[in-house]
Amino acid sequence: MLRTTTCGALSLENLGENVTLCGWMQNSRDLGGMTFIDIRDRYGITQLVFNMNDNADLCQQARELGREYVIKVTGAVVERTNKNKEIATGDIEIKVASLEILNAAKLPPFLIADETDGGDDLRMKYRYLDLRRNPVRNNMVLRHRMAQSVRRYLDGLDFIEVETPVLIKSTPEGARDFVVPSRMNPGEFYALPQSPQTFKQLLMVSGFDRYFQIVKCFRDEDLRADRQPEFTQIDCEMSFVEQEDILNTFEGLIRTLFKEIKGIDLPEVPRMQYSDAMRLYGSDKPDTRFEMLFVELNDIVKGKDFPVFDNAELVVGINAKGCAHYTRKQLDELTDFVKRPQIGATGLIYMRHNEDGSLKSSVDKFYNEEELQKWSAALQTQPGDLVLVLAGAVKEKVQKQMNELRLEMGSRLGLRDKDKFAALWVLDFPLLEWDEESERYHAMHHPFTSPKPEDIALLDTKPGKVRANAYDMVLNGTEIGGGSIRIHDKETQALMFKHLGFSDEEAKKQFGFLLDAFEYGAPPHGGLAFGFDRLCSLFAGLDTIRDVIAFPKNNSGRDVMIDSPSTIDDKQLKELKISTDA
Amino acid sequence: MLRTTTCGALSLENLGENVTLCGWMQNSRDLGGMTFIDIRDRYGITQLVFNMNDNADLCQQARELGREYVIKVTGAVVERTNKNKEIATGDIEIKVASLEILNAAKLPPFLIADETDGGDDLRMKYRYLDLRRNPVRNNMVLRHRMAQSVRRYLDGLDFIEVETPVLIKSTPEGARDFVVPSRMNPGEFYALPQSPQTFKQLLMVSGFDRYFQIVKCFRDEDLRADRQPEFTQIDCEMSFVEQEDILNTFEGLIRTLFKEIKGIDLPEVPRMQYSDAMRLYGSDKPDTRFEMLFVELNDIVKGKDFPVFDNAELVVGINAKGCAHYTRKQLDELTDFVKRPQIGATGLIYMRHNEDGSLKSSVDKFYNEEELQKWSAALQTQPGDLVLVLAGAVKEKVQKQMNELRLEMGSRLGLRDKDKFAALWVLDFPLLEWDEESERYHAMHHPFTSPKPEDIALLDTKPGKVRANAYDMVLNGTEIGGGSIRIHDKETQALMFKHLGFSDEEAKKQFGFLLDAFEYGAPPHGGLAFGFDRLCSLFAGLDTIRDVIAFPKNNSGRDVMIDSPSTIDDKQLKELKISTDA
Repeated sequence: MLRTTTCGALSLENLGENVTLCGWMQNSRDLGGMTFIDIRDRYGITQLVFNMNDNADLCQQARELGREYVIKVTGAVVERTNKNKEIATGDIEIKVASLEILNAAKLPPFLIADETDGGDDLRMKYRYLDLRRNPVRNNMVLRHRMAQSVRRYLDGLDFIEVETPVLIKSTPEGARDFVVPSRMNPGEFYALPQSPQTFKQLLMVSGFDRYFQIVKCFRDEDLRADRQPEFTQIDCEMSFVEQEDILNTFEGLIRTLFKEIKGIDLPEVPRMQYSDAMRLYGSDKPDTRFEMLFVELNDIVKGKDFPVFDNAELVVGINAKGCAHYTRKQLDELTDFVKRPQIGATGLIYMRHNEDGSLKSSVDKFYNEEELQKWSAALQTQPGDLVLVLAGAVKEKVQKQMNELRLEMGSRLGLRDKDKFAALWVLDFPLLEWDEESERYHAMHHPFTSPKPEDIALLDTKPGKVRANAYDMVLNGTEIGGGSIRIHDKETQALMFKHLGFSDEEAKKQFGFLLDAFEYGAPPHGGLAFGFDRLCSLFAGLDTIRDVIAFPKNNSGRDVMIDSPSTIDDKQLKELKISTDA
Repeated sequence: MLRTTTCGALSLENLGENVTLCGWMQNSRDLGGMTFIDIRDRYGITQLVFNMNDNADLCQQARELGREYVIKVTGAVVERTNKNKEIATGDIEIKVASLEILNAAKLPPFLIADETDGGDDLRMKYRYLDLRRNPVRNNMVLRHRMAQSVRRYLDGLDFIEVETPVLIKSTPEGARDFVVPSRMNPGEFYALPQSPQTFKQLLMVSGFDRYFQIVKCFRDEDLRADRQPEFTQIDCEMSFVEQEDILNTFEGLIRTLFKEIKGIDLPEVPRMQYSDAMRLYGSDKPDTRFEMLFVELNDIVKGKDFPVFDNAELVVGINAKGCAHYTRKQLDELTDFVKRPQIGATGLIYMRHNEDGSLKSSVDKFYNEEELQKWSAALQTQPGDLVLVLAGAVKEKVQKQMNELRLEMGSRLGLRDKDKFAALWVLDFPLLEWDEESERYHAMHHPFTSPKPEDIALLDTKPGKVRANAYDMVLNGTEIGGGSIRIHDKETQALMFKHLGFSDEEAKKQFGFLLDAFEYGAPPHGGLAFGFDRLCSLFAGLDTIRDVIAFPKNNSGRDVMIDSPSTIDDKQLKELKISTDA
């Protein structure tokens, strides 16, 4: 090795040792006849000291080093007079006896430090320099540790990691595929997998019993704020299990991650019905770090000649505890918030439970103090609390609006602390959802998700009411994973396809090989997949998955560092027998 | 769980326990009033017993089960009278009290057993059934265990696994890329990576210090016997190292794998110069499980008026020990072997060292016994040995031919035992190789491989003689990995590009982002990549990588199970703004 140790390893225990370090010149300070240089590598920072009186040439050489020069130094470990408690090596410094420049460096376009002066675009173009910054590189180290931990846990439970193919077959169902023209089979295309769903089910048919894979998946979708065209899943499947077994197994995984990675004893993960999540939080991924539960007020508020409430399908309130002091300006802000087009409420009604015990609402004209007492009772307000109420003609829309308002209030009240974690299982999702555009039911999860046996009879009468053996894990209001118990018998599968509007022929064309496989002895099976990028970003306390991906793409799907995608040679197009019409 | 234990877990220790097993019906035998059924899962096989006298209905139900039916049984663990020492559960059987059919199965198209009657094509089409067979599934389990072991070893040495992107940029250099049309950037394409080479070097520039990844790579090449369009590498890179550090680190990895996976203490891996490998084995990937080294005979045989030898650049012999008894027919076979077009020798000369001590050659006309004594001395023959000699006008061709003959003899003599392992480092590969077609030197490894400092002066005079800091690891005559110390300074890189015939502009166009990165403080670094599929196949004692890949493609790049590649919808083509000319 070019070095004897790293820049993060030395302490008072090493006093007097002669060491060689390699790393990057972080910064340099001249103090009288001395020069102090911080040398940095992945493992830490060590202070180097040069003295004009001891060796003027060497000290001069040190003074001429530029930022980010790669250097190799040899010298003795000595105790620092001016100790730095902020860093692990802060008790010592290296009295340098020799210095070698391994590589010079141009001045980087932004500061390589925990807090940088580089803008987003510049840091994306020079991603390899941004990755040099501790907070960014630490995200990748965290990700590595999480992946190792996941593998250790699943391996310990007899799960086998099997690599499924990346060059697979395009199916019209689901999101848009990336495709790959085949040179050896002109006119034909591979597709990149959106998930290894069918392959993992085939592995169950093959008797693999317990499968997992940390695997890249691909979706050619218009990229919203925090989507990437390639993303990573922890993909899992088990045979001979019921929902309860899956929940226990993967709750164990998440709790193990919290313990090993963050040293947190995550409590047992609570479980909630999908219907309750919608009723109490207006969301299938509630942020349970704070309460502020929805309270339906229909029975209390209707019939008082207030048309907004009388005409509503749902009147729903939340108790923003301790917010009675909100000023008119603050309440106007909240009103503006819910009226934003992407939220779409028509207005916001509030009631203050004043410190003196009086109740005061924005609709006093319709509701006297006695009526407001009912609101107060329903929402369990105390002096100092503020009730916020939304109403509307379509229940689902009001729930969605109130969900946004609840999250906004949670943020304003500091209840969404990134260092606090609340996980939740949401269970019994609907099997089907109505699609306005195609005017038919779609599978909410996918067509192989099994209905609850007790609900199968509803398929003919109230298909939207049929519940599935499907479950999501939610962490801090973000869906981090989901899955289902699959259908494994032909009859139920045929019934499912019928209700999804597939002809036998269509079903065969799209899912033929899997349907064939199911005829040769498919075991009962189920599984789930976690979004690994999202999980990492939550563990890292980050808002975007981009920061836990070493080389992410921007919102146009471009890698601006390598300038990809790009045009290709005509020769390549000819070999592939395709032309571009762009 | 639907079961209380697996089909591989029960023994006499469990006598009397009431258990529930799930699995596949492997086979069934009726013996008098009894029925014996083997139930199989991934973990093993357990015998079930049913008795007409105890429960006629149940026994009748058992008799009606078809092969590969998925069943669930409950019953008591009892001792077998007729023990089966071949299987782990052979001491016990389950006296079944209840039986449930979880899924029926059509009769599989081939036998699901260690030895099957299914042909290759049928087994590829029903790969999910082939994977049900123990030897095939065990390969995947082996692969999983190897991957876990690799990750554990490298993690223990502070390597970080970083996921590099799959959607990258096409470069004309190297093998042919698979490309992916970009819908969001019409007319432009991503490419799938042939290796993460540039990204791992960027990670070194980023200060990651030690990187690895078990990663899918892609090459759109015509598929020879044992290539796959998608394959897996163990890709690694280290900073601040010299060649010796890389060799030690990754020799450690391979020895750890042998120890953990096969319980073998692999001895220290010998090292051999590329030039010696060519001289002694005629190959840069010698099979060192056996000796039979090349002996150059030029000095001994020339000048005896035998034109075949006199006109040859190389006359080379091997000693096939104990083969003097070879019949004329066997020798003719060997002659036919070396004369096959793909080998291309013009003939084979031999000398028998007979048991009586006499020497007898196929060229006695030119070489008397005294001359043959020189052959015998050079090749250290003993009574019973057979010398095989090849000669030709181009040294490299003769070496290649003799390599083939040596391997053939090794196989015939049983010296290439799949359970025996011989690893080897081949060092100091040439930096450049002449390419006849383009009439210029190409980088033998890649353009970022560093030349040996002491050879740099030869770049101008004898570029073909310049050695690189490049190394391969060879196992049993197969290259399993290779890498190099990279160039990390601008000057050497510019020199290298000049000698590869790149203009500054071309270099910038193809490798601009990496060259830019090298200007911002690149550390000395190097690495290597192992072919993971190949490594697994060698560990499994298999001839093809196909058998260690869960869902491989055939020689036309097709997955016949899912029938991919396939045509895609016109709608998809339109969205991508491409058309097919096929």
